[in-house]
Amino acid sequence: MLYHVRMDVHPPRDLDPAAFEALKAAEKSRAWELQRAGKWPHLWRIAGAYANVSVFDVTDHDELHAILSSLPLFPFMAIVVTPLARHPSAIG
Amino acid sequence: MLYHVRMDVHPPRDLDPAAFEALKAAEKSRAWELQRAGKWPHLWRIAGAYANVSVFDVTDHDELHAILSSLPLFPFMAIVVTPLARHPSAIG
Amino acid sequence: MLYHVRMDVHPPRDLDPAAFEALKAAEKSRAWELQRAGKWPHLWRIAGAYANVSVFDVTDHDELHAILSSLPLFPFMAIVVTPLARHPSAIG
Amino acid sequence: MLYHVRMDVHPPRDLDPAAFEALKAAEKSRAWELQRAGKWPHLWRIAGAYANVSVFDVTDHDELHAILSSLPLFPFMAIVVTPLARHPSAIG
Amino acid sequence: MLYHVRMDVHPPRDLDPAAFEALKAAEKSRAWELQRAGKWPHLWRIAGAYANVSVFDVTDHDELHAILSSLPLFPFMAIVVTPLARHPSAIG
Amino acid sequence: MLYHVRMDVHPPRDLDPAAFEALKAAEKSRAWELQRAGKWPHLWRIAGAYANVSVFDVTDHDELHAILSSLPLFPFMAIVVTPLARHPSAIG
Amino acid sequence: MLYHVRMDVHPPRDLDPAAFEALKAAEKSRAWELQRAGKWPHLWRIAGAYANVSVFDVTDHDELHAILSSLPLFPFMAIVVTPLARHPSAIG
Amino acid sequence: MLYHVRMDVHPPRDLDPAAFEALKAAEKSRAWELQRAGKWPHLWRIAGAYANVSVFDVTDHDELHAILSSLPLFPFMAIVVTPLARHPSAIG
Amino acid sequence: MLYHVRMDVHPPRDLDPAAFEALKAAEKSRAWELQRAGKWPHLWRIAGAYANVSVFDVTDHDELHAILSSLPLFPFMAIVVTPLARHPSAIG
Amino acid sequence: MLYHVRMDVHPPRDLDPAAFEALKAAEKSRAWELQRAGKWPHLWRIAGAYANVSVFDVTDHDELHAILSSLPLFPFMAIVVTPLARHPSAIG
Repeated sequence: MLYHVRMDVHPPRDLDPAAFEALKAAEKSRAWELQRAGKWPHLWRIAGAYANVSVFDVTDHDELHAILSSLPLFPFMAIVVTPLARHPSAIG
Repeated sequence: MLYHVRMDVHPPRDLDPAAFEALKAAEKSRAWELQRAGKWPHLWRIAGAYANVSVFDVTDHDELHAILSSLPLFPFMAIVVTPLARHPSAIG
Repeated sequence: MLYHVRMDVHPPRDLDPAAFEALKAAEKSRAWELQRAGKWPHLWRIAGAYANVSVFDVTDHDELHAILSSLPLFPFMAIVVTPLARHPSAIG
Repeated sequence: MLYHVRMDVHPPRDLDPAAFEALKAAEKSRAWELQRAGKWPHLWRIAGAYANVSVFDVTDHDELHAILSSLPLFPFMAIVVTPLARHPSAIG
Repeated sequence: MLYHVRMDVHPPRDLDPAAFEALKAAEKSRAWELQRAGKWPHLWRIAGAYANVSVFDVTDHDELHAILSSLPLFPFMAIVVTPLARHPSAIG
Repeated sequence: MLYHVRMDVHPPRDLDPAAFEALKAAEKSRAWELQRAGKWPHLWRIAGAYANVSVFDVTDHDELHAILSSLPLFPFMAIVVTPLARHPSAIG
Repeated sequence: MLYHVRMDVHPPRDLDPAAFEALKAAEKSRAWELQRAGKWPHLWRIAGAYANVSVFDVTDHDELHAILSSLPLFPFMAIVVTPLARHPSAIG
Repeated sequence: MLYHVRMDVHPPRDLDPAAFEALKAAEKSRAWELQRAGKWPHLWRIAGAYANVSVFDVTDHDELHAILSSLPLFPFMAIVVTPLARHPSAIG
Repeated sequence: MLYHVRMDVHPPRDLDPAAFEALKAAEKSRAWELQRAGKWPHLWRIAGAYANVSVFDVTDHDELHAILSSLPLFPFMAIVVTPLARHPSAIG
Repeated sequence: MLYHVRMDVHPPRDLDPAAFEALKAAEKSRAWELQRAGKWPHLWRIAGAYANVSVFDVTDHDELHAILSSLPLFPFMAIVVTPLARHPSAIG
């Protein structure tokens, strides 16, 4: 099932730079893992913002919440979730 | 180049039903044509709304505007365009 | 799977009163049917508003959209859908 | 009497981790107590957010306020209360 | 139990003037009746607006909804309801 | 002259607890004084929030501003003032 | 006592042009009358908008409401009223 | 003096098509005239919207208002004006 | 040329009290100077808020920006500027 | 390709003044470099605000994001990007 997710990242200024780099590396590693597993089929950067638009493909709301809430940058993100249904004019 | 586009359709109530059906058929036909041409790679229905989330893949802003403004339902749509850049954590 | 849905009804003023009564009767009949089928386990009126808060229990986003978009009053409703996950502090 | 309550939790970053864990444990314990007493019949997690949608069943506004304002995480929550009336199309 | 209610009136322009006067007279008559019954203890005009701030004193949410939704001008009003609890610094 | 005032209190987290208790005691004492003087005829708690709805009865805008800006918790409050006129349907 | 008032005019499109001209003439005539009486000391056009910023100098909220609600264009205006107090840094 | 102006056009649906074409032709003709006179140095279409971003170079607020309020499509436009000052990092 | 300016002051809590008093004294001194010079003809306190409504009379946008951005409290203010044109119904 | 960009700068109060001056100098130097390269053809100060309106002329979304996200003040800026298409009434 597909979910449209927008994430805006607001890292606190007083975060230790090394800790922040470690968090970002962990985030990227987790993003790769989820993409390879087919759970996170689309991930785009919003031009000019520290934000992304993503599409997740998971079993249900609980799996989505488990994935999102365990992202390393989750504590610093504002997240909006929109359930996506099949569009009658979509092909393929 | 990719653009994230959300379209909310607000058809006027006094539209002639037959004319509305014709517009929707023309919209679907045009959507198929643009999907087949690779210009409109993603088209999803937002669950519970007469609205969609789309991704367009076009040459530039002018082509995007030409496509959107010539959609049969364009006069009845509220549209928000967001330019998408490559995300550093995206694979493939 | 559970979805939180808020529906605000904005009936057009020039709707024929008899047609409106027929629509409301059809809406109620459909609401009963969906409640009896277990698809619409909660339905509350928001005090002071022509609006409701509902919880739907359906298979997936597509079923939710099919149900909502076929409600007799759908053309006159503003709808907001929120996916509900299990809360770690919920019992039972 | 039923009240729809949405709570968004914004824990301050500089909260001592042990103190935060203690607060969360106290919050869960209090949530269980209120659920068992029938005061908090519904509690759902909003997917992708540190937030919940709840329904409370209490005697009056004063009891609701007493309950909400004494939750251990209350100082870190944004709360919206909506009174729920019986819906004319609700069954049972 | 007390409820704070703000009502903004948006009368449609094409309402027949005589019908509108009749509605306003019925609204005033009903407002007097509810004030005399002690159900509507406060009613103020917001300066510069076709709107009021009111306080209702009723048994429960259902009574409040029944009163508000049967006001003659209800179809033309935007209403916001806020439950009022006792304030710890209030006297008397 | 009557003014409708909503106050939302946002106490800073790093306020010294004893200092905060002293401020709240001073606020309550001042609220009692103003209520007894007839300047603050209504004071209600908004259920579920650290906020109140008040009605002040003062001579003019300057007196209102002097009262509000000298409240002990004023530095931590967001305040919205609405002038109240007599309503044509109010009795008594 | 001074009140800051912003008025945005939204004339309905189907207003008879002659009737609209008559309304605007009546509005101007009333505005002149109130300015000459010292009730409406400031009246400015917001550049690029069919809107104005005004300052009224009247006895109380009731007089302000009586003046505003009897303006010929009142039915087509969105009005925001802000009470103005003396500023401690103002001279003269 | 430079002004940043955003104009969103909301043509009414019941406008006679021939009258609308005439208005658009008059708008284009006036836009050309003002561009040639150096009053309207920048005019861009916002991609996906019936809206533009413009920069005007005029003598003062009164001239700006006179120009904007006399545009043929002015009755159907929502306009936001922002005064532009010289930027300390701008060259040339 | 006239500009309508609203300033909301948000002084940081951790500002040294003596430094804050010095800033406010400098602000008042500068406000007096600009009023005496005829640059700041109107300055009102918004009742109940640490905010003001002002009218400035300056040569152009650059002078306005120079004045506002050099106010001692500028770093702590949210400012909204609205250009004012002559109103066709204003007298004198 | 043209992009309209609004940047609002929110420098943190506890930034070391010397470090802030160094950042601003680096920002200005980078702004000059990009203007000379033709990438940043327009840069205006919004009167009364620590904000600018800019137009960028770059190859694609990725180049825009690379430029914006590497600006020295990027961590302190709120940025809104709007793609600009050619306007049918623009000349030259």
